[in-house]
Amino acid sequence: MELVSQSQSFGGMQSVYRHRSEACAVEMTFGVYLPPSARARPVPLLWYLSGLTCTHENAMIKAGLQKYAAEHDLALVFPDTSPRGEGVADDQAYDLGQGAGFYLNATQKPWVRHYRMYDYIVSEMPALLQKELPLNGVFGITGHSMGGHGALTIAFRNPEKFRSLSAFAPIVNPTRSDWGRKQFSAYLGDDEAYWAKHDACLLLADLGWDGDILIDQGAADQFLEHLRPEAMARLMAERRQPGVLRMQAGYDHSYYFVASFAEDHVRWHAERLHAT
Amino acid sequence: MELVSQSQSFGGMQSVYRHRSEACAVEMTFGVYLPPSARARPVPLLWYLSGLTCTHENAMIKAGLQKYAAEHDLALVFPDTSPRGEGVADDQAYDLGQGAGFYLNATQKPWVRHYRMYDYIVSEMPALLQKELPLNGVFGITGHSMGGHGALTIAFRNPEKFRSLSAFAPIVNPTRSDWGRKQFSAYLGDDEAYWAKHDACLLLADLGWDGDILIDQGAADQFLEHLRPEAMARLMAERRQPGVLRMQAGYDHSYYFVASFAEDHVRWHAERLHAT
Repeated sequence: MELVSQSQSFGGMQSVYRHRSEACAVEMTFGVYLPPSARARPVPLLWYLSGLTCTHENAMIKAGLQKYAAEHDLALVFPDTSPRGEGVADDQAYDLGQGAGFYLNATQKPWVRHYRMYDYIVSEMPALLQKELPLNGVFGITGHSMGGHGALTIAFRNPEKFRSLSAFAPIVNPTRSDWGRKQFSAYLGDDEAYWAKHDACLLLADLGWDGDILIDQGAADQFLEHLRPEAMARLMAERRQPGVLRMQAGYDHSYYFVASFAEDHVRWHAERLHAT
Repeated sequence: MELVSQSQSFGGMQSVYRHRSEACAVEMTFGVYLPPSARARPVPLLWYLSGLTCTHENAMIKAGLQKYAAEHDLALVFPDTSPRGEGVADDQAYDLGQGAGFYLNATQKPWVRHYRMYDYIVSEMPALLQKELPLNGVFGITGHSMGGHGALTIAFRNPEKFRSLSAFAPIVNPTRSDWGRKQFSAYLGDDEAYWAKHDACLLLADLGWDGDILIDQGAADQFLEHLRPEAMARLMAERRQPGVLRMQAGYDHSYYFVASFAEDHVRWHAERLHAT
């Protein structure tokens, strides 16, 4: 992987790398933050999956996670939200194509060639990062909006890989949302049987989750009807699922919301990732 | 002033306003952060002046100041760095014209009509903000790079208005820098006698500063030759000027540097602005 830029941040190092992705068959860019303690010993890694329209960069510069990662001895990784560039299929809408990969493997044309974000996040990137960086192999995962959907669905399907889980304003029930039905139809085809493994509520009902879950949701979020937090709230309560779902009064869907609760989420992950 | 956007942040409110500026004879945009405590009582205001190429937005989304302002009961204001828009003179270079106002009143064509950032920051905005927001009239000022130049020069010339002062990687000696000589020549004309009142080192030598000063400078800053921290370091030591100039090992000129020391600067201002 090729180093694109590097800046010291809170005593650690914020880097951007580019590499040729096998899964996506295209060059991909991502950000990595290493805390100061990673110079002395390997650290756990917290994955941050971003939302619609984002690149690797938005959360890296807006969410303010580095301070807390430095304090709690965690590395951070900020993947892109889709394959990009010339020759990669796209759509004029902001919520389909580039910037809107939905963390799945597309099966339908024209998306099938490059849109393999599930394999990229679950298999290719972990192997690459574990090889190249001072990591101890312990992973947690979080994300915002579409990235919250990614964090929940990827953790539920890969509990052996992710020890801790949280989300900011996640899309929790995409098979019943305009942020989901349109995209799953395009990427996966019209047979809804194939959609279930990308819906956090359906997966939790089917597979369960042995750990606990932290979800923050702004009560003044302008996209509540797409996010459907009530579906996850009911399901967690019905299943007696350990976890915390906080409706945060006054907060909208922006990075101001994410930044306001970034410290709580990093601490949540640190307590679980450093546990022996 | 017209509200452009508003998002809750760390329990307070981050707003963006647009208004017709008398000083600049054009519409100007700025950001304001009010801490939670401003709902109950008026608070002091910390001015953050931004650097070359920035709008009101960069520091607002990247510097991470809101968390500390919320904790320390300070309001923040993020002015733009120049007048903007159609009919406002500009230059193809990133360091002259729009995005590069240098916090002075231009006297030369074509800049003289709109480029009056000194009057805008020193007179027009304080009156507007004091009238429209829950402020107690106590001001501190900081800034980054060109904005550090603005903070130092504006404070030195207006000690009755600003009680506390700090800067991140400021341009301290622009009359001897490529970030200064070219711009002062364009905005103020070739008679260098008119430049002195916009040079922090010359002003400090001439006027002094009754308070103390906090300056952070990245030791790995890629623009050290333009910033000339050694001129300010020597002058402060020679004058026995109370203050702290910290060379921070490994940090560059980016917002990762600003964010890493944002907490220290907000605390510095809070201790002075809340003192009775």
